[in-house]
Amino acid sequence: MIREITSTTNPTIKNLRSLITSKKARQESGQFIVEGWRGIKTLLDHESPLYQLEQLVISKDWKNGALPDSIDTIAVPSHVFEKISDVRNAQGILGVVSKKKDAPEFPTIGKFLLLDNLRDPGNLGTLIRSAIGSGFDGILLYGDCVEPENPKVIRSTMGTFAFSNIWNISKEALFQWLEKGFELCVTTGLGGENLYEAEFSDKTILVIGSEAHGVSDELFKRAAKKITIPLQPECESLNAAIAGSICMFQITNKARA
Amino acid sequence: MIREITSTTNPTIKNLRSLITSKKARQESGQFIVEGWRGIKTLLDHESPLYQLEQLVISKDWKNGALPDSIDTIAVPSHVFEKISDVRNAQGILGVVSKKKDAPEFPTIGKFLLLDNLRDPGNLGTLIRSAIGSGFDGILLYGDCVEPENPKVIRSTMGTFAFSNIWNISKEALFQWLEKGFELCVTTGLGGENLYEAEFSDKTILVIGSEAHGVSDELFKRAAKKITIPLQPECESLNAAIAGSICMFQITNKARA
Repeated sequence: MIREITSTTNPTIKNLRSLITSKKARQESGQFIVEGWRGIKTLLDHESPLYQLEQLVISKDWKNGALPDSIDTIAVPSHVFEKISDVRNAQGILGVVSKKKDAPEFPTIGKFLLLDNLRDPGNLGTLIRSAIGSGFDGILLYGDCVEPENPKVIRSTMGTFAFSNIWNISKEALFQWLEKGFELCVTTGLGGENLYEAEFSDKTILVIGSEAHGVSDELFKRAAKKITIPLQPECESLNAAIAGSICMFQITNKARA
Repeated sequence: MIREITSTTNPTIKNLRSLITSKKARQESGQFIVEGWRGIKTLLDHESPLYQLEQLVISKDWKNGALPDSIDTIAVPSHVFEKISDVRNAQGILGVVSKKKDAPEFPTIGKFLLLDNLRDPGNLGTLIRSAIGSGFDGILLYGDCVEPENPKVIRSTMGTFAFSNIWNISKEALFQWLEKGFELCVTTGLGGENLYEAEFSDKTILVIGSEAHGVSDELFKRAAKKITIPLQPECESLNAAIAGSICMFQITNKARA
């Protein structure tokens, strides 16, 4: 069913805009916005472990893809769509997405990426994309990370957010998982085992530190394994998304070899 | 020698600002701006193959690092510094840098990254950082790439721009290098040789395609080698900087093993 809304002052339109601009609005409603056909199509075609597509909003001149009748759809004039949208040259489609109430439980085996106070939305989105691409089983957010429903995060995932398993994890919960046999593996600039020579457990939690401060002391102390990406002396460190992606692909391809 | 300038309307200040905001000003002068202590210190401590530090500009409250007397230095009040600067919470130091007249010649052996119409400044800066970190010998810019002296590119390199060898390369020049024995190696989403199983020549030119269109047809046709990073079906492709970095580190670490 398609409803039409033509006024930018309509409360529904204001609410949609707030889901893009306000973290508080996202947290209170449990909803967020996905912009663009790639992300919407992924949610239409696949069952997402975490997310549910609730509503579509299209600009009246949207013609690029067939939409199912079963989803509540709002059509708006293009100037109203631009008022909601966060994207330059928007494609004219966005979706309201909610988190499912029954989040999947943390598995007892697998390879997980733990992000330690990661703050940059582009880095988180890119790491979600690389985690899905490499075959990592999920992402753990530790400390004060950027929220995964931030619109810049969602955009940087290029549609792969729909497949992601993401959990917030406390220090206590993490330490419980370590007691159950997960191996905590931190990346360090100097003195760790060479990434390309290391062997990894099938219960691995790979830690990538924050952009500004690296891996926090409490995690570094608890690490069963420290690994280093070999770097030329002219380069002190790598970008967090690059380091995490190189490690994830090396770990999963080593396991397959 | 330190000179003082106190007015934002001084032509020197306007010229500095234009080197940040205007590609045309950078191209006409052959100069660009490096902001922040990390980049400046790298240029002070090391001989750069491409770049020469010409002048420093400091905010009057700059106290964080000793500066050599030999470099022409301008001190300005902090409100004038903010007028020039492109950075939020600027550190109060920037440098005017010129390209050296005698750019190094393209070597006859080595591993090079060729960027095919790469447009995103963050991607180029990150790839420069990863190229330096992995031990790649240089970067070739092909087609309409973002300029390496763009302030966002320089910032994303985290100081490593000072060590980089970057050349613009035409189709004709590239094809000449291929005739001299360089192997053109393109990355492709499907059907190439598995990156983790491939062997690479010590005369390799690795191609990363543009964010929007991938590798251009003319390069794809001339490729001696096509490689694929193995991806799970849920993920169509990787970010260009991630794909390039994974390949460069795999290639250089395979060569060392």
